[in-house]
Amino acid sequence: MLRLYDFWESGNCYKVRLLLSQLRIPFERVALDILAGETRRPAFLAKNPNGRVPLVEWPDGRRLAESNAILVYLAEGTPLLPADAFERAQALQWMFFEQYSHEPYIAVVRFWHFAGLVETNRAALPDKVERGYQALAVMERHLAAHAFFAGERYTVADIALYAYTHVAGEGGFELRRFPAVERWLARVRDQPGHVAITDEVGTPASLDG
Amino acid sequence: MLRLYDFWESGNCYKVRLLLSQLRIPFERVALDILAGETRRPAFLAKNPNGRVPLVEWPDGRRLAESNAILVYLAEGTPLLPADAFERAQALQWMFFEQYSHEPYIAVVRFWHFAGLVETNRAALPDKVERGYQALAVMERHLAAHAFFAGERYTVADIALYAYTHVAGEGGFELRRFPAVERWLARVRDQPGHVAITDEVGTPASLDG
Repeated sequence: MLRLYDFWESGNCYKVRLLLSQLRIPFERVALDILAGETRRPAFLAKNPNGRVPLVEWPDGRRLAESNAILVYLAEGTPLLPADAFERAQALQWMFFEQYSHEPYIAVVRFWHFAGLVETNRAALPDKVERGYQALAVMERHLAAHAFFAGERYTVADIALYAYTHVAGEGGFELRRFPAVERWLARVRDQPGHVAITDEVGTPASLDG
Repeated sequence: MLRLYDFWESGNCYKVRLLLSQLRIPFERVALDILAGETRRPAFLAKNPNGRVPLVEWPDGRRLAESNAILVYLAEGTPLLPADAFERAQALQWMFFEQYSHEPYIAVVRFWHFAGLVETNRAALPDKVERGYQALAVMERHLAAHAFFAGERYTVADIALYAYTHVAGEGGFELRRFPAVERWLARVRDQPGHVAITDEVGTPASLDG
């Protein structure tokens, strides 16, 4: 069975859980605690030298890291990855936008909140918040004219951007300033097979098992 | 003709110039000065609301942003993008690694050096440098056992990682600590049609033209 190395609170991991659920692909879930440093220990670094989750591992030993690369690979040949080459490129464009212009601000500020690191990072916070709002404004502009991010339908690009946007409030971001984003979040939640970031999906397994 | 909105010193832009040259695709080059804020002015924001180069524009009005999404789209159907789905996923994995774990450290430290911003960012510098070296160490570990990043041959993943790695020294990074990386840089330079980051390629054009 496919195995996912996972951390519940991570939006990057949630992307993969959501896609696997929507594609009805069964999987084992190995829970690692990022806060306890479990992704930086030798047993895991042997699997992903970059020390990050999510990581997907197949029974034949193949492994794949980077949430958005995993999404594209698993969605290949399904309606969740556009068949048209340019629409697929647009999906990738938004997924690189997510990792470069969105996640480092919106996800990081949320992480500081739940890990109790806001005071430690007080000096860096205003810039992170401002850039997070810039990313939301770019999304708002697109979503004012489009129902989804690529190909005018629900794809892995929406999964990638939904993951940290829908919990941006946990980092203090006010989503009500972005009505088109809020309507899009509702559309994503309405997709068949949707699971929440807190839903326990997958079969529990251990790193050594 | 295909048009590239470009900034010479940007490794992200250089990726696209290098690929276009190797694929022998003619293009117009519109030079924008990031340091002078030219990518944040209305004329350009109308083309890319995220205010970043590279941006590629086709005569029919289609546009694509995000360097690595551009690379994948332009390389589709050529030997520079693996035909095998899993090898393509590995290329994407390294391209997301590049944008998330490499560029924000190695490219940003280099930018601070050439834009005269090292003193302004003195407090943030040690962490950026440490994370840049971590990225180089992850590359070294892979390249100690592989000639290239995906599919055991030269692909867009190598172009993506070459762009800022080969000029990491301009940010003070000591590449001689990473012998496998240095040998890989030489292999990339030896590929047919290789152009340097300073080579003037493309036909000059203007934003309004």
